[in-house]
Formats: sequence, structure tokens, C-alpha cells
Amino acid sequence: MQASAKVPRSRVLRQPQNARYDRATVHGILDAGLIGHLAFAADGWPYVIPMLYARDGERLILHGSVASRLMRSLGNGARACLAVTLLDGFVLARSAFNASVNYRSVVVFGRAISLTAEEEKKHALRVLSDHVLPGRWADIRPPSPKELFVTSVLAMQIETATAKVRTGPPKDDPDDLTWPCWAGVVPLRMVAGEPQPDGSLSAPPDYVLQDARFR
Amino acid sequence: MQASAKVPRSRVLRQPQNARYDRATVHGILDAGLIGHLAFAADGWPYVIPMLYARDGERLILHGSVASRLMRSLGNGARACLAVTLLDGFVLARSAFNASVNYRSVVVFGRAISLTAEEEKKHALRVLSDHVLPGRWADIRPPSPKELFVTSVLAMQIETATAKVRTGPPKDDPDDLTWPCWAGVVPLRMVAGEPQPDGSLSAPPDYVLQDARFR
Repeated sequence: MQASAKVPRSRVLRQPQNARYDRATVHGILDAGLIGHLAFAADGWPYVIPMLYARDGERLILHGSVASRLMRSLGNGARACLAVTLLDGFVLARSAFNASVNYRSVVVFGRAISLTAEEEKKHALRVLSDHVLPGRWADIRPPSPKELFVTSVLAMQIETATAKVRTGPPKDDPDDLTWPCWAGVVPLRMVAGEPQPDGSLSAPPDYVLQDARFR
Repeated sequence: MQASAKVPRSRVLRQPQNARYDRATVHGILDAGLIGHLAFAADGWPYVIPMLYARDGERLILHGSVASRLMRSLGNGARACLAVTLLDGFVLARSAFNASVNYRSVVVFGRAISLTAEEEKKHALRVLSDHVLPGRWADIRPPSPKELFVTSVLAMQIETATAKVRTGPPKDDPDDLTWPCWAGVVPLRMVAGEPQPDGSLSAPPDYVLQDARFR
């Protein structure tokens, strides 16, 4: 990587008209997502890997194994970029050129540090758990000192962030409006299926059954 | 980026036990996904952006505006990495340490070239359309020469690829099996909602109504 102190702001915008920089939009999308895609450089190549993440104020919490070279390298302040994308629907225009998808996405640039204090790591893991499935943390066995020791927990400061959002119907060329095909939006969303119990307790807890995100 | 001729193979594996390299697994996940996350380097920073993509044999098709600096830079053979991740469920173990998600993911490394011949671009855009929504291409107005001209179409060779797959129930520590909480898997999947017509044709085509991916 060449040296550059400047944190990127808007280079990636392919559709600048969809860009939003306000904090509420950025935070809302980060809080609604589950999987982030983290990019970093190593050995002269760009890498991207999927990770669970959670927002804790103005930073993102990530975790992995202390045995991971990636975690060690990132935790030393390496430059990173995390994208979160929620696909909301197919936008079926009357031409391929105007076809699109409805989506919400955020791209965050920042550097990460490793959290080392046990209480700090425990707090961050709780934030992660509360983000993935609110209510779960209170039910499970708390982390042991050994588990905390072998878990690498990173906090990535949100240095800059850009949200992009597309909503609404297709935008066809006026000449295409009489083209004889169906046009419109096919909404897409994530839903939860029937919980599959492991062990003797068959009735899932309310925080699973009533999770409004996946009804 | 430092120079390195070697294409990465296994560096990113945080859970090597879940890694698979066979072509059928890699292709199956690429074919099942809709949004890829493309990483590249620019100005000394890693970038990652969400993109529609499609597999065409041993290459991935990407597209964007010819006005995009990114597209021009990538189309000149820049090193890139694309990840596709399908989230299949929450794996609720009895400890945070053993909690996980079921997922299928692929990480592809390769370099892209810009397609320039009109017929080649048209073929690639059709592959993209057929991947996103099979059946749609035959219904819509074909691309005009002008639309093809202002659309940048990239073909990224799959130089190396790694799939990771986790399925099945939680793997708890034996001592945790009596911990008094529900454990199991909550499956997650993408579904399509009620199509929202734009214009006068209200009945969506069969390839929307019968798309098995989203029932």
C-alpha cells in the first residue's frame, strides 16, 4: 500500500445521487445489518472477508481468533474498509439499462485497535451478541477468562462513512413506457424459519420467536 | 500495494475446518448469491463495494458506468477480490464462545479486464441479467448501442477461490450441555414479497411468481 494519510470519502460512489452522509442513516443501516464485508491489504493483494460486526457508538466491534494473522495485523491499526449491504428488492425496469435493485448500504473506512483489557473485551462481545440477537446474552453462560484470552476483539473507529440507499419504482426512459412487459419492484427480505432445537428444551425463547426483523 | 505475483490462496481462513476448494461448491455458492462485495486498493486504502455479479464459466461479470474511475482502473487488470456470503441461520450455542452462524461464502481472487466488443458486452450483460432473474432478459427492450457504449463491463478471471460452509447444530462444550437455556439453530432465508407493479400491467410474469429461490 502506498502511504496516504487521507481517509477516503467519496471515491467509490458509482451513483452519487444515492449517497447520504448523515449519521442517522449510516447508523441505521449498520444497526440493521448482520454480516459486514471487511477489506484490507495483505501481500500486495486486496482481501475481503465476511464477518459479524456490531456498532458501539462511533466504532465497530469485530472479533476472531487470536491465532489469526489477520486479527493481529488489523489490530495494529491497519487501514480497513467495511461494507454492509441490505438487499431490499429487484427493480424490474423495461430495459436492462434501467434495471436496478433497491438496497441500503454503508461503506466505512477506519483503522482498528485490539482490545486487551478483559472487561473491555467482555463489553464488546456483549455488544456483538446484543446486535446479532438481542436478549441472547442474558441466557448464555458468560465467557470464561480463557475464552476471552483466546478471542481477539477489535474496535474499528468509524473515520468516514458513506451510505447509499435506493428505494422506489423503476425509472424507465419515457420511450420505454409502452414496451409490453411487466415492470415494477419485487421486494426481498430476510425471514426466520422454524427454530431447530438442540437438546431437550424445545420451546425457543421469546427473543427468538418475537424478533421483529424476521417475521 | 507491494508487488507480489502470487495469488493468495488460504490466508483468510479463520476457520480452516470449514474451507472447501472444490469447483462444484465454489460455483454453487457463486450461482446462489446476488450481491458480491468487491475489494480493491486505491490511494493507499482498501476499498470494498457491493455489486451485482454473475458467473460466466470461470470468470465473473461485473458492470458499472464508464464514467467510473473504479471501473477504468479495475478494467486494466488491477488485483481484486470478491466475496459472496449467504447467511443461512443463527447458531445459538449455550455460550457466546461457541455461538456461530450457518453460512456459505466464497472468496475469489483475480484480475479483471474490460470487455470492449459490443457483442461481448451484450453477452455478458445477458449473463448478468439471467443470473439476477432468469427469464427477464427475453421480456425487456434489448440494449441500444449507446447504452452498451456507456456501460463498462468487466470480466474478472477466477484465479483462486475458497469456499467456506458451516451447517448444522451448535457445538457446545460438554460441560455446557446442562446450562439451562434454549439452544439450536434459527434458519434464515431471503424471501420475495408481493410484487409492486409499475404501470398498467398488474400480473407479474411467471419467472417472478415461480422463482423457487424466494418462495
